[in-house]
Amino acid sequence: MATLNGFFYPRTELGTAGIVPNPPWYYSGDLLTVEYRTDPARVRELLPEPLELADEDPGAVALIWADWQSCSGSREELLDPVRAQYKEAFVVVRCSYAGQTFSRCVYIWVDKDFAIARGIHQGYPKKLGSMWQTRPHPFLQAAPAIGPGGVFGATLAAGDRRLADVVLTLREESDTNGFVNGHAMAHHRILPGIEAGSPDAYNELISSQGAEFERGQAWKGDVDINLYSSPTEELDRLTVDEIIGGYYCQVGVVWNGGHSLTRLVP
Amino acid sequence: MATLNGFFYPRTELGTAGIVPNPPWYYSGDLLTVEYRTDPARVRELLPEPLELADEDPGAVALIWADWQSCSGSREELLDPVRAQYKEAFVVVRCSYAGQTFSRCVYIWVDKDFAIARGIHQGYPKKLGSMWQTRPHPFLQAAPAIGPGGVFGATLAAGDRRLADVVLTLREESDTNGFVNGHAMAHHRILPGIEAGSPDAYNELISSQGAEFERGQAWKGDVDINLYSSPTEELDRLTVDEIIGGYYCQVGVVWNGGHSLTRLVP
Amino acid sequence: MATLNGFFYPRTELGTAGIVPNPPWYYSGDLLTVEYRTDPARVRELLPEPLELADEDPGAVALIWADWQSCSGSREELLDPVRAQYKEAFVVVRCSYAGQTFSRCVYIWVDKDFAIARGIHQGYPKKLGSMWQTRPHPFLQAAPAIGPGGVFGATLAAGDRRLADVVLTLREESDTNGFVNGHAMAHHRILPGIEAGSPDAYNELISSQGAEFERGQAWKGDVDINLYSSPTEELDRLTVDEIIGGYYCQVGVVWNGGHSLTRLVP
Amino acid sequence: MATLNGFFYPRTELGTAGIVPNPPWYYSGDLLTVEYRTDPARVRELLPEPLELADEDPGAVALIWADWQSCSGSREELLDPVRAQYKEAFVVVRCSYAGQTFSRCVYIWVDKDFAIARGIHQGYPKKLGSMWQTRPHPFLQAAPAIGPGGVFGATLAAGDRRLADVVLTLREESDTNGFVNGHAMAHHRILPGIEAGSPDAYNELISSQGAEFERGQAWKGDVDINLYSSPTEELDRLTVDEIIGGYYCQVGVVWNGGHSLTRLVP
Repeated sequence: MATLNGFFYPRTELGTAGIVPNPPWYYSGDLLTVEYRTDPARVRELLPEPLELADEDPGAVALIWADWQSCSGSREELLDPVRAQYKEAFVVVRCSYAGQTFSRCVYIWVDKDFAIARGIHQGYPKKLGSMWQTRPHPFLQAAPAIGPGGVFGATLAAGDRRLADVVLTLREESDTNGFVNGHAMAHHRILPGIEAGSPDAYNELISSQGAEFERGQAWKGDVDINLYSSPTEELDRLTVDEIIGGYYCQVGVVWNGGHSLTRLVP
Repeated sequence: MATLNGFFYPRTELGTAGIVPNPPWYYSGDLLTVEYRTDPARVRELLPEPLELADEDPGAVALIWADWQSCSGSREELLDPVRAQYKEAFVVVRCSYAGQTFSRCVYIWVDKDFAIARGIHQGYPKKLGSMWQTRPHPFLQAAPAIGPGGVFGATLAAGDRRLADVVLTLREESDTNGFVNGHAMAHHRILPGIEAGSPDAYNELISSQGAEFERGQAWKGDVDINLYSSPTEELDRLTVDEIIGGYYCQVGVVWNGGHSLTRLVP
Repeated sequence: MATLNGFFYPRTELGTAGIVPNPPWYYSGDLLTVEYRTDPARVRELLPEPLELADEDPGAVALIWADWQSCSGSREELLDPVRAQYKEAFVVVRCSYAGQTFSRCVYIWVDKDFAIARGIHQGYPKKLGSMWQTRPHPFLQAAPAIGPGGVFGATLAAGDRRLADVVLTLREESDTNGFVNGHAMAHHRILPGIEAGSPDAYNELISSQGAEFERGQAWKGDVDINLYSSPTEELDRLTVDEIIGGYYCQVGVVWNGGHSLTRLVP
Repeated sequence: MATLNGFFYPRTELGTAGIVPNPPWYYSGDLLTVEYRTDPARVRELLPEPLELADEDPGAVALIWADWQSCSGSREELLDPVRAQYKEAFVVVRCSYAGQTFSRCVYIWVDKDFAIARGIHQGYPKKLGSMWQTRPHPFLQAAPAIGPGGVFGATLAAGDRRLADVVLTLREESDTNGFVNGHAMAHHRILPGIEAGSPDAYNELISSQGAEFERGQAWKGDVDINLYSSPTEELDRLTVDEIIGGYYCQVGVVWNGGHSLTRLVP
């Protein structure tokens, strides 16, 4: 009947009710990253065919908190910031596909529905969670500075259970913001078949990365990490065998789509 | 590498981290339904090809609140009820496809991530919202009874804006719980293409209905409805031109998959 | 200037902005109670002068979840149920004052501001928390019945940490709903002095109980209890040394004030 | 029995379960302020005896959003920031007492329980609400800068209804951050009598201001304000008759008690 408009659901003739506007999507935010090594066998448990463990340092894990403000090209969300601000925590490993090393988000929790919808599109396996990370501020009465001795905490909970908390104490400037989340992402976009017990109706391996990425000076420091168990999570299986380091930086990002690598449609 | 398990994302070798367990999914809950007529042109705005307006009473709309407890076959979620209870409000119209009348959920808001994930699977266009509906109780100090004179309110908000509120005053027993939500559902399951500006990567029209459905005595009554505007919603375009009626009932439901009607994969 | 109206703050000439309406306050709800014995020395840690340990069974503790709908005499909150429904979990011990045994709520978590305001008035030490308890329903697809074999879970979290969870399996009808929460409450209402380091500006021991109390058939059963630690809570100091039992019942309550026992105003 | 410790409730022998730690309380945060004139008669409705309208500009109102990080002297809350971060929106008018001009917070909404507890102590009439304000960021992909042309939005909701939203467009540096919230606060601390229908058990007029206050460069700009009605709020009675201006600044604050002005204890 009608020609329906809108990037994702619900689509309507007017196209203003959609859960998320058209890309490109714009982001400004703060990233707190901790990197450590776990047993590579635990990483392998999370890599479906045709992905393989990365050749180098295959047990490296990044646990990242991000405090975001985001918007569409109209920037209208910035003036009604319940539609712009969200927090997330996510876990990234690396993997190998067709001889190339990719980053891959294996777990992620966010606190807004538009962020979930973007994740469905981008292949991030987003659940709802409650995330908190210390904020830097020019006045230090109740805030750290981004600089030597600055101490930042970050916590993750879901299902009314604490899943992780970390403390990062900044020591010095860093040339990098870590290496685990530094490649293009290799993600699966899946849709189970609608018939009871049927195989996936859609299963696509895609790759994407920021169309634009700016980063301030990164800082590195010392890290404490605690992971906690939950009956509905497997985060604590990625045991912390050796801490690599922790990083703090501020970034600006634009995301505008990715590329299909393989696509299985029964 | 690994064989990954889990109905939906994130899939892992253990298969316990998934956002939603395998169907069948079980539900017990209370439904508050109000039905009214709007301009059929406004319903048409929400029906993509090949769906057409229903032949009879094409402007009929049902606005439904549900207070659910749900679980998988293991019933384990019932003992950790943050994983079992959720509330929703949704808008149903009817449409015609291949000569048959279907119900179709055009807008829906829920308050848990597992409910969103089910919606992605079932084609319900779920956003997060805040829903409240009066609960009946055997002690009437602060509750209505399900019976003559029982008064129930229900409200819907999203993005920190009130979108709808209704008051239902029960009058008498009813043979039906309304008619708008009484058919099998015809829903689209879509996934936008990952390349910037590309067409949908997946677009499937499916049909589904409860595998099992039990209903208690339905009651009908008088209704007041208010719809409010929001820059990110179109609910108030479905203006209330004529009230049909309101209904209250308690139900038990099992959902276990549906059927594909048409599938477009570029 | 103006004559200000309203039971509690903020008071205004119109008197409609107050955080909580005038008593009497009306409640309909479901109570899930577990009772156990801890070391009486741990109860004593929570009893300020002039309260003493109860003469009999001084280590008895009740951990109670309640799923409430509540309203003022106008009942208007029932039609905008975000203002009527709330959940709580609370811990009750007994104590002795002037030769009489009282119940005393030592910890309590709620999820609405009007419930906090009532607590300030009634001497309940209310914090915000996230509480969930399994709901009975006439349709058993995803719910227990209140009867033999009915299994109910309840959980408590605050500060993004799980503090307690219990499972109650109903066995048989019970003459009582437990005994720990069965007396009038003896609570302190306090206001610290506004000068830095000054003593309390107000410190009153009050007693209160329901002005009206109706109860359905109570059921008792078997109980599992887990308490968890938190840096800002002491609930887990009330270790579960011996389980007494668990109870489920539905109630209707009216509260309309209490009585002052002792009052210290510097 | 025991000597109980803790600034406010619940008090225990260990003193670690209290809802809020001992002052001094430390704050770092961003303030978005809009000032306007309303009918002074509407301000008078909010001033109990012995407060009178301010002599100059008695209808001036400040509507302020604050995005805070706060902690005790131990700074431990900063590492578990669910205990440190909160948002608030509040309405300030001025009044006269004993020949001196004071600021007075007449309405305030916060989103954490420790903030409510501080309000009970300080005489701020705190309710729970949902507040959002645009955040500045060094990367402008999805954020304004604090500088000419920077556009900030702020919204307030409570009870699932939008109560206010504003847009502030910065124009130039400002010597002040407005004048309405620039005096010591004159607040009432009240506790209704516990007997049904009795007068206040405690009613104290106190004055307090920051023990330490640092402010960055303030910016001023142009303002749009919308106030919305709610059955449980009176904010929209403070109609916007004339806009004075809008301000943005970052601050660091220490609060460490106040002084009693008058005290009524029956």
